Amino acid sequence: MSKEQRAQVDALLRRLRPEDPGPQSVEALRAGFRALMSRMIVPDGIRTAQTELGGRPALRVDPEDTPRPGTILYFHGGAWVFGSPETALCLTGHLVARTGFAAYSVDYRLAPEHPFPAAIEDTLSAYRALLDSGHDPSAIVFAGDSAGGGLAVTTCLTARDAGLPLPAAVVAFSPGLDATRTGESMRTKEGIDPIFTRAALDHTGAMYLAGQDPRQPLLSPAVLADLTGLPPLLLQVGANEILLDDSTRLAARARDAGVDVVLDVTADVPHVFQCFAGVLDEADEALDRAALFLSQRVRSGDAPRTAAA
Amino acid sequence: MSKEQRAQVDALLRRLRPEDPGPQSVEALRAGFRALMSRMIVPDGIRTAQTELGGRPALRVDPEDTPRPGTILYFHGGAWVFGSPETALCLTGHLVARTGFAAYSVDYRLAPEHPFPAAIEDTLSAYRALLDSGHDPSAIVFAGDSAGGGLAVTTCLTARDAGLPLPAAVVAFSPGLDATRTGESMRTKEGIDPIFTRAALDHTGAMYLAGQDPRQPLLSPAVLADLTGLPPLLLQVGANEILLDDSTRLAARARDAGVDVVLDVTADVPHVFQCFAGVLDEADEALDRAALFLSQRVRSGDAPRTAAA
Repeated sequence: MSKEQRAQVDALLRRLRPEDPGPQSVEALRAGFRALMSRMIVPDGIRTAQTELGGRPALRVDPEDTPRPGTILYFHGGAWVFGSPETALCLTGHLVARTGFAAYSVDYRLAPEHPFPAAIEDTLSAYRALLDSGHDPSAIVFAGDSAGGGLAVTTCLTARDAGLPLPAAVVAFSPGLDATRTGESMRTKEGIDPIFTRAALDHTGAMYLAGQDPRQPLLSPAVLADLTGLPPLLLQVGANEILLDDSTRLAARARDAGVDVVLDVTADVPHVFQCFAGVLDEADEALDRAALFLSQRVRSGDAPRTAAA
Repeated sequence: MSKEQRAQVDALLRRLRPEDPGPQSVEALRAGFRALMSRMIVPDGIRTAQTELGGRPALRVDPEDTPRPGTILYFHGGAWVFGSPETALCLTGHLVARTGFAAYSVDYRLAPEHPFPAAIEDTLSAYRALLDSGHDPSAIVFAGDSAGGGLAVTTCLTARDAGLPLPAAVVAFSPGLDATRTGESMRTKEGIDPIFTRAALDHTGAMYLAGQDPRQPLLSPAVLADLTGLPPLLLQVGANEILLDDSTRLAARARDAGVDVVLDVTADVPHVFQCFAGVLDEADEALDRAALFLSQRVRSGDAPRTAAA
């Protein structure tokens, strides 16, 4: 338990918030997020290389030691408006370092220049490119944070509906899963959340929607998607988030649809607290749980046991 | 994914059910459960010894290799009417083998001879005995299955209310947490659950209640207890259980009370599926996740990090 660390992270984020609470320009949002995420610790033990995947730039992240079989397709956060593979490198890197898998982090197109569903088109193309180049889907996992956690889920749904084989698992850190904003936490965590307000989410959300109806499964999977057939899900979320109930409701619907689902909630921590690995014990511990979950789903060709009890 | 293994376990349990679906005598319940659990695989790498803890018999379980600092206080399942440390040895043993911690599995008093709250008096006495003998509570964890998973939670509540320091974590496998039987899964999983019927639960439940009101926090913590201050919880449950919503509702209340909580649901598996370790991949994997969770909560005196980002 690190009550003190949790309180320090909360205070830090409140200090770093822009002084003017009004809506920010796209340029200010992108620059501010880049500056914030540059403070996060990228782990040792990884190598990065610029590459391309499915027609978009991508950052390849490899473990320095001999990789283990397995590929993470990573989707960065940033409200579908800002962020890049570089801003999420702390998270992608920690997963790579902990699993020994290689990762591709996709530089998908952003709103407002490219609203919904451009991002999902790009992430699906990236997945298709992995499959086309001979990757075994049972050794691919999707992971992402915030908007990218949402993409990890919706890319799965899109792949399923396109008749593609599905990846072995999905890990989502504080995913955004409800453009209808109907979760109770939108109200109950307002003020408690040190990062987001409902108004800020609506500001960037409108750029991604571009006038489209939020009541669509790929915009609001936590309330509208049929989740049947999804691979095992791990949802990690902080209790101090207005997005908390995006995860609790997706978890409930996934359970009802027969999906293996772990809903992993840490008290008194903010949105995507895992990026504080190295300074917040809960962040490192959550990443260790995520790495175990991913490693359990990517088997290296073990023969399955038979129930002979 | 082991769809075939999950189906085999389900079919096995249906074959093993008594032919007469009517209420069984206490003696038949105890003998039947002993016979069923004797089929489970006890892992290698552990040693057991009969001992005593807080005035009750207990089974001490040690790793064969050098133990790591940490003590599991284990509470066996059996509807508060049957079972013993020996019937739960597969589960206790797997946790000991995976964590390197020692365990004490408490032979608490059973109903109908000793109805509620006798079991909780015994488990609390066992915990007090550990504390009195100098165990550091931050190196003690509670774990249990079924009724014993319920005791892991309610013993914590009782310890808190008695002003005792709390253990570092609680792991509950398919815990029984609601004597009011108001979970939706009581209805939606009837027939899907290969072990329990509502009638069977009511039969043994009446022995434990002995006419007492089920609407009490220590009988129905999933719906009535104040969970404030509880240590981090891991609840693992199968989706094919009429007890599923005992866990989903406790998890929701724990989140609301500011408790760290992991709700880990596996599809298409029965009550306490972890006892099929060795024949069902999901059982081994769930136990590995439980062992990581416990190990994360028992630190060996590491200095906490400070948030200096």
